Formats: sequence, C-alpha cells, structure tokens
Amino acid sequence: MKTTAKPAVVLLSGGLDSATVLAIAKSEGYACYAMSFDYGQRHRWELECAGRIVASLGAAGHHMARIDLRAFGRSALTADIEVPKSRTLDEMSREIPITYVPARNTIFLAFALAWAEVLNANDIFIGVNAIDYSGYPDCRPEFIKAFEHLANLATQAGVEGRTHVQIHAPLLPMSKGQIIRRGLQLGVDYSLTSSCYDPSLTGEACGECDSCLLRTKGFAENGVPDPIRYGCSGMTSG
Amino acid sequence: MKTTAKPAVVLLSGGLDSATVLAIAKSEGYACYAMSFDYGQRHRWELECAGRIVASLGAAGHHMARIDLRAFGRSALTADIEVPKSRTLDEMSREIPITYVPARNTIFLAFALAWAEVLNANDIFIGVNAIDYSGYPDCRPEFIKAFEHLANLATQAGVEGRTHVQIHAPLLPMSKGQIIRRGLQLGVDYSLTSSCYDPSLTGEACGECDSCLLRTKGFAENGVPDPIRYGCSGMTSG
Repeated sequence: MKTTAKPAVVLLSGGLDSATVLAIAKSEGYACYAMSFDYGQRHRWELECAGRIVASLGAAGHHMARIDLRAFGRSALTADIEVPKSRTLDEMSREIPITYVPARNTIFLAFALAWAEVLNANDIFIGVNAIDYSGYPDCRPEFIKAFEHLANLATQAGVEGRTHVQIHAPLLPMSKGQIIRRGLQLGVDYSLTSSCYDPSLTGEACGECDSCLLRTKGFAENGVPDPIRYGCSGMTSG
Repeated sequence: MKTTAKPAVVLLSGGLDSATVLAIAKSEGYACYAMSFDYGQRHRWELECAGRIVASLGAAGHHMARIDLRAFGRSALTADIEVPKSRTLDEMSREIPITYVPARNTIFLAFALAWAEVLNANDIFIGVNAIDYSGYPDCRPEFIKAFEHLANLATQAGVEGRTHVQIHAPLLPMSKGQIIRRGLQLGVDYSLTSSCYDPSLTGEACGECDSCLLRTKGFAENGVPDPIRYGCSGMTSG
C-alpha cells in the first residue's frame, strides 16, 4: 500500500547546515517544503545556493519569503558594519558577535509555522547547532524548545488538540565535522552551499569570517577538501 | 531632573483595540514606537487608519513592515474567501473562524521583538483580548505568556541577563465596552480607527462581520455612537 509522505517545512538558508538538514528530513521520508528568506542579507549569494540545493536534493516546494530586516539594522549581516575576521574559536565562544541578526530565527520560525499550518504539516526543520556555531542566542536548545511550546499554542491545530507541532533541530548536538560527515553520507553536494558571511558578488568565500573558519575546520576534521571557491577579498575587505 | 522615557514597541493595526493600547502605553510614560504590517490584508484601509492614529496620538516612530501572508492564504483576510457575516456571539465563540490568519500574531510579535532589540526596548505592547474577540488561538493569555518566555531566550539581552522583555497585553481581561471606555478617557479619536474585516475601498465598514458586530456592541454598551461610517456593501458582498 502506498502511503503519502508527511509534509514538513524545512528552513533552507543555502548554507552547509540547512542543506544537510534538508537531506536528513528527506531521508526520514518527509515531503519537504523548503523555505528561504531574502531579508536584505549582505551574503545574498546564499539565496542562489538555496535554489541550487533544492534542484539537487529535490523538494515538494520552495518558497522564498521577502522581508526587510535591514530596516532594523544593528548586524554586520544587514547593516554597513564590518564582518569580524580571523577570530579564534575561543574568541567566538566569548560573546554574541556583531553578525547576530536581532530575532532572526524567531521571525523565520514564525513564517515556517504559518506555512506549516496551511500545509497541515506538523513538522518544521531548522539547521541550528550549538557546538561549532557563532554563539547566537536563537541557536540554543532552550530557544528551540520554547518555540515549539509557543507553536502549539499559536495555531488552530494546537488549540483543537488535533496535532502536535514539532520543531526538529537534528544538528543541535553535532560538531561541524559530524554535520559534514552525515551530509556526505546522504549525498549532499557541498559545492552548492555557501557559508561565508562576506562573500564576493560571484560567491567566493572570504575564508576568514567565523562561518568560513568553522566550515574549514569541519572539512579538515573529515580529511576531505571543501569544494567551494575561496577568494582573497570579501565585500567588506574588498 | 528630566528623565528619558523608556522606549516600547506598540503593535498598531489601525483598529480600535491597538489604538487604545497606544494611548495606554503613552499614558504609562513610554516613548512609543508604533509598528504596522502591510501583509496583503483585504482590509488595507486599516493601514490608512494606523497612520492617522499615530498622527493624532503621537509616537516616537512608526514603522510599516511589508510582508506577504497572501502567499500562504487560507484566511478570509488574505485569500479570496468570503468573510462570514451576521453571526451571533454564540456562533463566534464556537470555533476558530475563517478570518484567522495562520501564525499572524507570532509573526507580528517576532518583528516587534527584532525592533525592540535594536531600540534597546524591553517592552512590547499588543492589543489582543480574549473576551469579546474572534476566537483566534494567538489572542489567548497562554500564547502571550509563551511568547514572552521565548523572547527572553531569543535575544542578546536575555542571554546576557541584562534585561527582561515584557509583552504587555493590557486589553486581555477587558470587554469591548471596557476597552472603548478606557480609550475615550484617554482621548482616543475612534473616528480614525477601522475594525471591519471587509470594508469598502473608501473605508465604509460592512456592519455585519464579527469584528463590526463586536465593535457595535462595545459602543452600545457605552451608550455612545460609533463615529465611523457604515455602508451597505463590503468588498465581498459588493
């Protein structure tokens, strides 16, 4: 007997983590509805990547939401503020960096919840992780748990007790090396992904921002080369 | 000694409730940053009203965020679905109506949180109420409480233990009549507000949707006339 795949909304930035999450959700049998955000980010290249990842891995749908987080600013990703470079892992762990975008994951998950409700999907996937990460408050397990609680109060299905919305964050306990290993097993083509906070207009990664350094470390841990292009100049330093 | 007013973000739809909330927040001494959403709503007239309310009551700032909730549909406010008319209060209380917009208040509060963080504001005001209301899940006290919990995990200030974000919903325990009484005491000009889910293009209220019926009841309870214009035809029925 043929069963219909359960729908899930998968947040897809175009980065290494969310591409891996899409592959994981698919491997678990979900019909994946990928959701990306054009929010005024400096690293718009990742949106190109999101489209290519969907084309490569496949998805039941892909929605690009346009919102303007530049209006609020105060992040190196959405305002004219220099992206920090060449920080050590120890420096990264010490404070919330200027690349943090205020309430970004809350906004992304809120939109995902709206789409999930319309799709009758009870499952939302997000690629946050709390080990090799930039120290953002909205990447921590307690944040994800709080959003799941909220989601079940916010929606029609929750009120009627029909369903339970679950926020899946399968990368939470994984190191960057472990994430890449899992993705490679699942056939993720990492040449299609972009992690850099400050890429060139044609997508060369800077190799020096927190995100590039964590990515480089992850590939090194696996003893495999990173298939993306690194250039000498990001948009900031350029 | 002159003290600087504490900043607060106030969600302002242009309706009766949120106009009253703006007046309440101002009366409590906050420097109010009003936030409205052009989300593809059928009743766009309320956005005109939001601007007029800000001009009348005054605010430290007014931000209009543009987001597209039509992309998800499934609500009579954002899709081509007829707005229910002439329902009794008993009928309204029985089920979540088709005017419910999936995850709308979650999205609105998420944006308010982003702006609050940038403004260094610890206070967010929202005009939900749970007595004379349309039965939306995201208007209930438990939803507001869950969002407040989330907000304090989602943001930089929360992580660093510097502040505590508070979601104020001063109308929660009030009937529509009580809300209007409070607003009149505070000098709210209700002729500038719009409540109708299905107004004409020039702002005449239909007088028959749930929101019009609750509003009419509230003015009747106060024995004062409702100063807005009611017409015979809404956009749906016209």
